[in-house]
Amino acid sequence: MRAGPSQEEVRRHNLGTLLRYVHVHGATSRAELTNRLGLNRSTIGALTAELISAGLVSEAVPKETGRAGRPSLVVRPESDRVFAYALSIEVDRLRAARVGLGGQILEQYETERPPGMSADEAVEPLARFVRAMHDQLPDDTRCVGSGLAVAGMVRREDGMVRLAPTIGWVEEPVGAALRAELGDPGTLSIGNHADVCALAEHARGAAVGCDNVIYLYGDVGVGAGIVAGGRRVTGHGGYGGEVGHMVVNPYGRPCECGSRGCWETEIGEHALLRLSGRADKTGRDAVLEVVDAAVRGDSQAQHALRHVGDWIGFGVGNLVNIFNPEVVIFGGTLRDVYLVSAAQIRSRLNSVGLPACREHVRLRTPELGADAALIGAAELAFEHLLDDPLVS
Amino acid sequence: MRAGPSQEEVRRHNLGTLLRYVHVHGATSRAELTNRLGLNRSTIGALTAELISAGLVSEAVPKETGRAGRPSLVVRPESDRVFAYALSIEVDRLRAARVGLGGQILEQYETERPPGMSADEAVEPLARFVRAMHDQLPDDTRCVGSGLAVAGMVRREDGMVRLAPTIGWVEEPVGAALRAELGDPGTLSIGNHADVCALAEHARGAAVGCDNVIYLYGDVGVGAGIVAGGRRVTGHGGYGGEVGHMVVNPYGRPCECGSRGCWETEIGEHALLRLSGRADKTGRDAVLEVVDAAVRGDSQAQHALRHVGDWIGFGVGNLVNIFNPEVVIFGGTLRDVYLVSAAQIRSRLNSVGLPACREHVRLRTPELGADAALIGAAELAFEHLLDDPLVS
Repeated sequence: MRAGPSQEEVRRHNLGTLLRYVHVHGATSRAELTNRLGLNRSTIGALTAELISAGLVSEAVPKETGRAGRPSLVVRPESDRVFAYALSIEVDRLRAARVGLGGQILEQYETERPPGMSADEAVEPLARFVRAMHDQLPDDTRCVGSGLAVAGMVRREDGMVRLAPTIGWVEEPVGAALRAELGDPGTLSIGNHADVCALAEHARGAAVGCDNVIYLYGDVGVGAGIVAGGRRVTGHGGYGGEVGHMVVNPYGRPCECGSRGCWETEIGEHALLRLSGRADKTGRDAVLEVVDAAVRGDSQAQHALRHVGDWIGFGVGNLVNIFNPEVVIFGGTLRDVYLVSAAQIRSRLNSVGLPACREHVRLRTPELGADAALIGAAELAFEHLLDDPLVS
Repeated sequence: MRAGPSQEEVRRHNLGTLLRYVHVHGATSRAELTNRLGLNRSTIGALTAELISAGLVSEAVPKETGRAGRPSLVVRPESDRVFAYALSIEVDRLRAARVGLGGQILEQYETERPPGMSADEAVEPLARFVRAMHDQLPDDTRCVGSGLAVAGMVRREDGMVRLAPTIGWVEEPVGAALRAELGDPGTLSIGNHADVCALAEHARGAAVGCDNVIYLYGDVGVGAGIVAGGRRVTGHGGYGGEVGHMVVNPYGRPCECGSRGCWETEIGEHALLRLSGRADKTGRDAVLEVVDAAVRGDSQAQHALRHVGDWIGFGVGNLVNIFNPEVVIFGGTLRDVYLVSAAQIRSRLNSVGLPACREHVRLRTPELGADAALIGAAELAFEHLLDDPLVS
């Protein structure tokens, strides 16, 4: 339990609140900031001045507003100068980017991640990308830290990847390895892929303004990033959201985790491809092929999508009863399945979900696409700055 | 988004923090408060003086400490004078109590709730209990509000009971009815039974100090109160935690909710009693009879408990994968089943739960017993006071 803040802490909190506002909403007039933040004009002026001198925002006269009177100055984040490195380790690729304050991706690099690539091998190209970006930074830029998203279960404390079945890793100290390689560029924060995607869609995508959100991500595996009451649900060690291993079918197929009938055995890529007669294929292109075939009338593909859509609705119904969310977002290849199976999914959801729990729930596709992982990883890194903008 | 607090808000926040500390921890010396709250001695002195003059705490010289030097004054909540009314509508009974600041039940009343009793009929005796307590209040007491726990799905906004299958209610405006009956005694806050039990066990029971908690409550129905990252997970409308309607067996029995194979069809009282050959019985005594019979070697009772224990472990495994909690608490008749089936439950939990998600999870029985609903309902009512102790 902690007592209230001092005056100095209040000032820093207000600086963070103002900076977070323009980070999330983009360029905002002083008049609107005064209005939104409930602070008076002189306080907004003083806070803005301080953030300008810290190099975090800039201020300018807006373009012609068409209104009479002196226009209110517009405050915008220094997106070109203040940035985070955002990294992502995914099933089939490694990505690195610079993301500016305000959430814009400034530049990005990508390479394949061949099956069997170890954690050390994966960290090396990521660090190389960061060094390449670092060596060519424009003058007068500032890195506030780095964020890494990993498609696996990540220990919050130190970034140890406990289990990443789709990548093939068990107990890999990715956080330590990457910190050792990066050395210089500030604090490194690590999170689960679906968690950071949820963060990104919540801040600037399909779940803006929603306090109760389930972001589902599927490829070979299925995971969720969950926001409840406006906050991420990550659990005691950081491993929450493993909805792909909610057992939905006790008489179902063995799962790679050692259990049986996990949700991902019914709705993951392998299930869809197997049921559609493509057990030898894998990856998003193969999923899209099934979707295309179904649309063209291929009955086996249609059957596969009906099966998967039904089980998606089933599991979403369970999650809706547990979380009573406002919005469920379908990411990864679940997006592609959702687009052709929405009616099926909604129907099954309606049969499993209690009316009060499901009555206001909206089903959505992501707005940020594959950028979500990078934008979300950057959000992890920006968190420190937004909590206390004057932290060095 | 909201800016930082003013000086006055900081002071009120500190008052709330100090009051909350002694509310949760009981009598505490000034020296320990200084230490725990991170405020200096003079601030603690000033805050205490203010809370004393508001009649919320008292201060006294402690009994002989055995140490040299002047002993630090002890601050304690005015538990006899400041109280909330706590009400609970359960499957078979109605309860009302006065709960003092600090969480002690000062007096309580209880009556049966016969099957078929309507919401209006249930509200009447509760209001009568409150009036009876109100008429005999000792001098100089202060009611800070009322809290009601209902074994059903309660709309957060207005206390409308949307669905309470075990009570037999659909769309009953319990909040409005009780407010109309009570009239006088302050703000009424309403919550779900399992949610408020979780609140109570989190504040002063089996989950003290744990930020990620699942409190399961079972009788005929099964529900959960969930705490994630230190905060209750109640969802968009207040209906979260309906884990009893997580479908665990898609080929299972029809549930009263209209779905099939819901968790409560496998682990609720009806399942246990049916499997043990007591389909004609109901209630906690009947459950205890099954437990006793199993302990005495009755093979049908043992079979029933194995079945139910297995499905309890199964569902808890799912929830552990989703929430990665530190502790799972078994309340209601699930407590009785847990006590004789702990090994079975843990074994199945271990087969369903991912190692990282379950490695630190402790399984526990409640510490507050049936008092949890009343203590938790009072916590709902105290919330306003603790947020701002000077609110009138």
